[in-house]
Amino acid sequence: MTDTQLEQKADSMHDLLSDRRIHANMVAVNAMLQADPVLIDVTPALDALPGMTRHTILTSGAPLPWPAYEGGQRRAILGAALFEGLANSVEEADALLHAGDILVRPCHDYGCVGSLTGVTTASLPVLVVEASMSGSRGHCVLYEGSARERLTYGVWNEAVHQQLTWIKDVLGPALSAALRHNGGLHTSPIIRRALGMGDDLHSRNTAATAVFFEQIYESVLEANGFTAATRDVLNFLSQNDLFFLHVAMATGKSIATTASNTPHSSIVTAMALSGKEFAIRTAGTGQRWFRAPIPTLQAKYFDGITAEDTAYMGGESLITETVGLGGLSAAAAFSLQDYSGGSAQNMVETTEAMYGITHTEHPQWKIPYLEFRGVPFGIDAARVVSTAITPRIHMGAALREGGHAGAGLLIAPIEPFREAIAALTVSAA
Amino acid sequence: MTDTQLEQKADSMHDLLSDRRIHANMVAVNAMLQADPVLIDVTPALDALPGMTRHTILTSGAPLPWPAYEGGQRRAILGAALFEGLANSVEEADALLHAGDILVRPCHDYGCVGSLTGVTTASLPVLVVEASMSGSRGHCVLYEGSARERLTYGVWNEAVHQQLTWIKDVLGPALSAALRHNGGLHTSPIIRRALGMGDDLHSRNTAATAVFFEQIYESVLEANGFTAATRDVLNFLSQNDLFFLHVAMATGKSIATTASNTPHSSIVTAMALSGKEFAIRTAGTGQRWFRAPIPTLQAKYFDGITAEDTAYMGGESLITETVGLGGLSAAAAFSLQDYSGGSAQNMVETTEAMYGITHTEHPQWKIPYLEFRGVPFGIDAARVVSTAITPRIHMGAALREGGHAGAGLLIAPIEPFREAIAALTVSAA
Repeated sequence: MTDTQLEQKADSMHDLLSDRRIHANMVAVNAMLQADPVLIDVTPALDALPGMTRHTILTSGAPLPWPAYEGGQRRAILGAALFEGLANSVEEADALLHAGDILVRPCHDYGCVGSLTGVTTASLPVLVVEASMSGSRGHCVLYEGSARERLTYGVWNEAVHQQLTWIKDVLGPALSAALRHNGGLHTSPIIRRALGMGDDLHSRNTAATAVFFEQIYESVLEANGFTAATRDVLNFLSQNDLFFLHVAMATGKSIATTASNTPHSSIVTAMALSGKEFAIRTAGTGQRWFRAPIPTLQAKYFDGITAEDTAYMGGESLITETVGLGGLSAAAAFSLQDYSGGSAQNMVETTEAMYGITHTEHPQWKIPYLEFRGVPFGIDAARVVSTAITPRIHMGAALREGGHAGAGLLIAPIEPFREAIAALTVSAA
Repeated sequence: MTDTQLEQKADSMHDLLSDRRIHANMVAVNAMLQADPVLIDVTPALDALPGMTRHTILTSGAPLPWPAYEGGQRRAILGAALFEGLANSVEEADALLHAGDILVRPCHDYGCVGSLTGVTTASLPVLVVEASMSGSRGHCVLYEGSARERLTYGVWNEAVHQQLTWIKDVLGPALSAALRHNGGLHTSPIIRRALGMGDDLHSRNTAATAVFFEQIYESVLEANGFTAATRDVLNFLSQNDLFFLHVAMATGKSIATTASNTPHSSIVTAMALSGKEFAIRTAGTGQRWFRAPIPTLQAKYFDGITAEDTAYMGGESLITETVGLGGLSAAAAFSLQDYSGGSAQNMVETTEAMYGITHTEHPQWKIPYLEFRGVPFGIDAARVVSTAITPRIHMGAALREGGHAGAGLLIAPIEPFREAIAALTVSAA
């Protein structure tokens, strides 16, 4: 072949790949848009998650060997082993984890997502969100409460233990009864309303939680009666502005899962952090993770805390960005400007940039300031690579020693997107 | 005196007036800012309003002689007479009103404000909001529900009758019990939160209602038990996004009243509409109304409705603008852009213009998009006159034949502000 013929062949190969990808992305994104997620139940992870066992502890991010988990993520996993009664001491738990008698697995492999450490164990109740069009499910443990020290934020102590016990014994069963009573709650309309009320559904869920409360309080009462326990449950639901975050996360996972295993598609189906790495999956590359070291979080910390006091300990709440919320919807949530962007104008620019790397605009989830333009939806790794613009992520910051430190803006590294596109090209060629 | 001496005298007179006015306005606005309004009870108007009688019907706007009330405002007043059992037929009610045996009085003279027709009768429950710093009170009937046909919107029929009976017999007493149980609710923090969640607190109260519900549901349950009636009450509170509007109005009235009777002050303490006139009061001119014909409302109507189908039938919800909300806070509520302004940018410009006619910025009520700048607070009639910029008002539109027609933007006429300043100048000279 002449050079010209070679070039033509390469061009037509490129066109073929491109056509295939465009078609596949359309299929993937349409499936996500039609998901119609419904919060159907709250049940122990053991019952809800296929493959879950009593000796499995799920945690955030692409998997690492046990010795590689450090800091808050390690502390939370050890604490979880004690919570489940799998060991009587931290030392014993560590030994069992080393021996593989307690397994550490990534949440995402079990249809689950977790906030920060993301630690999820057999007896902890998880929100079960089902995409009613496809049956795909997403799960997430319940929000743990607003105490600065939580298992989510890498702390295990008696207060954390007691709170998790209350969640397991009281909150989870009460919500389960309520959802079985009312037949489940469609979560997409709640997200739609909350975007019109200043939430990004990641760092801010104030409105979503209030709207959710308006929709669920009656079933909680009818299914459980107006008892002292019900009072506590209703108080917890109405006083924790971030309660809905975990519902949004399970919703995001159920939506993203509808698109996973779409051959040739470069649509991102997961973004996750361990304490060490940022990693993604795409619809066309199945369960494979594409990884990179985590860049610096641009955060605003609570009074008296500096960047040196903080550390990554994982996080999968960026499933919200994966479905167009969080940083992608920055222009819906100007109240977050001090944490994420610095000004309303910067937040508008963030969202506008995200239109450049997404497949479409969501037909129901809209941003009032942008004259009701749909949120940027369906991150396309191919567009990330071609524009060199990466997802902007709103996320919480954790104290190195455990605890909630603040919130900020994370700019995803580009390498995982490049590797995913390379893998898609090889598999398609 | 020479011309120069005359000019100097006029100048020094002007300076004196100006100094006096500036000082008086500071006093008036500080009183308003320090009001700390608390929703303390819901009681029948007869019990709550000083001077109220069984034969008095309050309605919106500067007072008119009975024959001058027309259309929806007239129909609502006649319906109210039947509701109170003051007459057995519309004809009898009309005769009694002509004879003065039933009195029609302006809400504002009774410490009250009303939405649209504003019709308030002895047995109807009113929200009682007390400015805890001064003891000034503001009152407003309860939101009537979302049916298109309401007394508020100039309709009297059996469905309206039944709904008002439920409000009188069930909703009012249940809320009264709840508020006496919890000792009252501070309304200013709810308004602060709602401004960060997309409400202007006039045309949009979605967030405020949700936050209010989170704060009151427990007292409703504890004070009334979990009965069928309580279910209905909680449903009404949680499903009517405009419920809080009337709380905001009573709050606005309690705040504005703290400033009324401040000699020399040009701060606006009331803006109100009858079916025929727009009228204002200022802090320095007491109970006197300054009136002008109503200009055209720039509105978006519900499907199938045109401007010809609509008519003014009064309205005092613009007490919210009087305290910096509604149109003055347009830039907080981009979801309203189709109704009020046409675009987010126009809403920003509306609020920015309002800073030119207000005395200060509210230290707690803030607008996220404007980098948390306080809402424009304390409309100064003197600044309205000197800038020729008049208040921008968000308000509901009513069908000529009765019913809710849509919402829009009203630009206040300037004449009443000019007349008020002239009256202040005469009284001060």
